[in-house]
Amino acid sequence: MPFTARRAALRALLPGAGVDALLVTDLVNVRYLSGFTGSNAALLVHADGDDRSRICTDGRYATQVAAEVPDLAAVIERACAVELAKRAAKLSVERLGFESDVVTVDGYEALVEAAGGVPLVRAPGLVQRLRAVKDAAEVEALRRACSVGDAALAELLEAGGLRPGRTEREVALDLENRMRAHGADGPAFPTILAAGANSAVPHHRPTDAQLQRGDLVKIDFGALVDGYHSDMTRTLVLGPAADWQRELHALVAEAQAAGRAALVPGAEVTRVDAAARDVVERAGRGDQFVHGLGHGVGLQIHEAPYVGRTGTGSLAAGMVVTVEPGVYLEGKGGVRIEDTLVVRHADPELLTHTTRELLEV
Amino acid sequence: MPFTARRAALRALLPGAGVDALLVTDLVNVRYLSGFTGSNAALLVHADGDDRSRICTDGRYATQVAAEVPDLAAVIERACAVELAKRAAKLSVERLGFESDVVTVDGYEALVEAAGGVPLVRAPGLVQRLRAVKDAAEVEALRRACSVGDAALAELLEAGGLRPGRTEREVALDLENRMRAHGADGPAFPTILAAGANSAVPHHRPTDAQLQRGDLVKIDFGALVDGYHSDMTRTLVLGPAADWQRELHALVAEAQAAGRAALVPGAEVTRVDAAARDVVERAGRGDQFVHGLGHGVGLQIHEAPYVGRTGTGSLAAGMVVTVEPGVYLEGKGGVRIEDTLVVRHADPELLTHTTRELLEV
Repeated sequence: MPFTARRAALRALLPGAGVDALLVTDLVNVRYLSGFTGSNAALLVHADGDDRSRICTDGRYATQVAAEVPDLAAVIERACAVELAKRAAKLSVERLGFESDVVTVDGYEALVEAAGGVPLVRAPGLVQRLRAVKDAAEVEALRRACSVGDAALAELLEAGGLRPGRTEREVALDLENRMRAHGADGPAFPTILAAGANSAVPHHRPTDAQLQRGDLVKIDFGALVDGYHSDMTRTLVLGPAADWQRELHALVAEAQAAGRAALVPGAEVTRVDAAARDVVERAGRGDQFVHGLGHGVGLQIHEAPYVGRTGTGSLAAGMVVTVEPGVYLEGKGGVRIEDTLVVRHADPELLTHTTRELLEV
Repeated sequence: MPFTARRAALRALLPGAGVDALLVTDLVNVRYLSGFTGSNAALLVHADGDDRSRICTDGRYATQVAAEVPDLAAVIERACAVELAKRAAKLSVERLGFESDVVTVDGYEALVEAAGGVPLVRAPGLVQRLRAVKDAAEVEALRRACSVGDAALAELLEAGGLRPGRTEREVALDLENRMRAHGADGPAFPTILAAGANSAVPHHRPTDAQLQRGDLVKIDFGALVDGYHSDMTRTLVLGPAADWQRELHALVAEAQAAGRAALVPGAEVTRVDAAARDVVERAGRGDQFVHGLGHGVGLQIHEAPYVGRTGTGSLAAGMVVTVEPGVYLEGKGGVRIEDTLVVRHADPELLTHTTRELLEV
């Protein structure tokens, strides 16, 4: 069970945080540490071990929690975080850590009251720090999710699904259904399919606008497989590319390659961002690259680390991140190229394999 | 523009909260008050009017915010809440309210620092209170979303989509695609399609298990239309119903009718829950009805009011809520029947119209 090992890794962080137990209330963190996938839960991880640890969920999930988390005692209550805080003293907790980056100001007040005399201690980001470095089972899930995305896009193109006259919405749905047919539980996020001038809107949502010959078509999409998210962007041209489209694509491809080459353990995330951004800035288009270079991806589509100008920290081997520079010419069109990669001591491992050449379809 | 009216309604609540501006950081609340649909934003609503109010989002959404929110000045920054808190003093804010039920403990600390001398005041739930009572445009959106759900289920049944040999997953995807074909942007939440003994798991997710003749099939699903969610559950039988299935269905139908009849303005939510629960308890099955009776529905699939034993407050005309009792026999099968209704001074208005009779398909 990877969950036992993950809880052990968390326990190793508790002394440094000055606590002997952590109350985990972020649902994704609960899933990561226990395998529980319901929509209401909290987890108390005690430094002493699983015997003094508890998972809480409500009556809707009584059967599910027993099946998904056979190795932890379950408490059935609706107000999960408050209920576990109430039990802290009985579980011999002396200093109870809580996720101060997740618990709200009002929620904190309720926890203090419930915990009675047990002091609450801020302990933000501990599980997120663990989650940033993926274990083998996670990389395998991400590999499968990325491979579903590759297969679905290849099939869409082979089937002639990207053609003038179809709407952005139709093509997006077609692609999402092909991902499901290849085993995805659904899209990893709402598919961005943006044609023509819409491709200049970084996070455009598909409309009833029809694709036209000569359009740049930006496709940013991913598959959800066993809770893990893939993320890839390709920008194609419907028919032969115009010179400006070809130049824009080449610029972004050069920036993207520079970003990928900068993915090494120990690199500060701001420097990774700069490696790609410098290419765009030298071309005089720095102000048209309006977002960060990338982000971690795993049980959430956006998670630590954030790779951008305002990011903090450095890369480590085993992190899985996107590299996705984009240049957007308002009213005209934009290009983004995005891959998902595992940071390795050797070259980074590409999980997305669709060609990065400019496709004219 | 309904947004102008909604901001005006919020302004009317500010004096009672002891503030002259509210920093809105919940994204759904931002959408409700402004129409902005991007994934990063904050809104400062000043009591003096829109001239001193601001919306903030990051560079990815610069074009979108101008199109969606033409009537408010936009600030483009990544750290939206902090940026607006910084500007509070210049916007003549003297006491800045914040959503203490949304802002995290760490986020609050950052806001205090950013706000400089301007005091921050807890102001939880103000926008949620407004959102609980739907305006005409919202009821119309919910009506359309519910009608898409009705149409998709009717079509699925007519097409023979619910038949032995298909998997839960196949049927769920079929239903979701029919909702899209009828105009939904997607499902309102992951479709629950549970056959046989799985129907006894309240929040079961579709598996590769095949439907079999004699199965109870519980379908809890909804459509997302213009940001609004529909929610309906029906439980059918594949083939002729056994006596125990018929009796279980009749019991839940009776409880559901009692719950619907209790939907009147002024009724305490605990009494509405009790109206339905009493029916189940009199049949000796109270401990098999393991969740609340219902919840508000709108821009979120679950929102205020919560109609359950631990709920607080009373119904008001214009609230839109679900009524969804369920009785679950572990290892055997369960029945849930759910409608979405508008609370009215007269009888509640049903938005979901699929028959509540036991269907044998």
